[in-house]
Amino acid sequence: MNTYGITLLSGGLDSATVTSYATGQVDHLTAVTFQYGQSHAKEIECAKKIASLLNIKHQLLDLSLLTDVSWYSALTNPDSFPVPPTERGAQVDPGIPITYVPLRNTIFLSLSAALLESQVLHAIEIENLEPRTVNATLYCASNAIDFSGYPDCRPEFFQHMDETLNHGSKLWAQYGIRMSVQTPIIHLTKSEIVQMSVDLKVPLNLTWSCYRGGKSPCRKCDSCILRAKGFEQAAVTDPLL
Amino acid sequence: MNTYGITLLSGGLDSATVTSYATGQVDHLTAVTFQYGQSHAKEIECAKKIASLLNIKHQLLDLSLLTDVSWYSALTNPDSFPVPPTERGAQVDPGIPITYVPLRNTIFLSLSAALLESQVLHAIEIENLEPRTVNATLYCASNAIDFSGYPDCRPEFFQHMDETLNHGSKLWAQYGIRMSVQTPIIHLTKSEIVQMSVDLKVPLNLTWSCYRGGKSPCRKCDSCILRAKGFEQAAVTDPLL
Repeated sequence: MNTYGITLLSGGLDSATVTSYATGQVDHLTAVTFQYGQSHAKEIECAKKIASLLNIKHQLLDLSLLTDVSWYSALTNPDSFPVPPTERGAQVDPGIPITYVPLRNTIFLSLSAALLESQVLHAIEIENLEPRTVNATLYCASNAIDFSGYPDCRPEFFQHMDETLNHGSKLWAQYGIRMSVQTPIIHLTKSEIVQMSVDLKVPLNLTWSCYRGGKSPCRKCDSCILRAKGFEQAAVTDPLL
Repeated sequence: MNTYGITLLSGGLDSATVTSYATGQVDHLTAVTFQYGQSHAKEIECAKKIASLLNIKHQLLDLSLLTDVSWYSALTNPDSFPVPPTERGAQVDPGIPITYVPLRNTIFLSLSAALLESQVLHAIEIENLEPRTVNATLYCASNAIDFSGYPDCRPEFFQHMDETLNHGSKLWAQYGIRMSVQTPIIHLTKSEIVQMSVDLKVPLNLTWSCYRGGKSPCRKCDSCILRAKGFEQAAVTDPLL
């Protein structure tokens, strides 16, 4: 099989782990990092280094546009909604956190799938690969256990996304090739993800999870707290601390 | 009801007609135009004028990124795939035309829905509207009759898109508000669309359908030919010719 894949690599622990996993599944793997706002600029540098170390292609995509469309969010519009020290602590009601970015995963996966479809159409129509020998997969590091507030991190969302991407694609309509959306860590706890990252020899010193972009992790935001809990429960030392 | 809507307005006959229709359905309507590549720059000017004339908000979104992700297409990458005089005539096999842009409607609708969700979340959480009094709709001018080559113009695609958008949204997960994807002209022939545009008093002189951006329509591209056929069959004079 000629295996093609895109992996969404933010630069955090979860996406680095899934990307490392994907390198063992796919021959032609591209890591995609979306750049938007300033919230996670530090992650972008980490993503570049991780892709380089794993020896895979890396594509940085400018998605400043996200601030214009998904503007009702503490991540895209931090001045109006400052990221609270811990989201759960700051929740007034048990609703979805204000760090929810409207339809972010839908947007990320649509754009990534378009890149994957372009690569595979080129492979078939220009490089003359036989469609039946081609396999196309999208890898997304979403997790429904430790961070279940976001609607677009649930398994049923990814099932619908998978159907939509395929129903809208030439790859499936003309060549019968289904792009598969895979979420390898969706049911894992944070400590299981840490253990998986150790097994896969993920360069943990290059991953960045903190919502803030300082020199070292703030240890206070929800993402830092979740990460610390994961390392602790897995009995692994976080090289960043 | 407090009705919110986004209409995808490219500036062509179809989207101008649907936008005009949507003004009668929705109180808070925003027309969205995506800017990418140079192929349709002329349409953008038309879109602005149409929105202004219909007295609705207009948002121009820079989607240059589309050239990077959906690069395997004659529309995003015209130097590698020149737009043929008539697509169908130039087709070697009966496949999907090379003007297919990978997952364009999936991307357009995801971004538009994120804008709609942002507006409605703001209305509920900041303006304190009662969720049960709020209604949210996306209008898309796709058509499955006269231009059925594209997989993302078929009714089944829009059904899947509708499900995905809602399964990934806070609006539905937290407030039970479903965003509805509506395609009012999907089953109409081009002449029926022309008739509908006349009934709705669409400013036809401001619409632009030609794939090329000259002073007047080229009359040769597939889009010009379809438009001419529609006007002819509806016995309406095209003000552009």
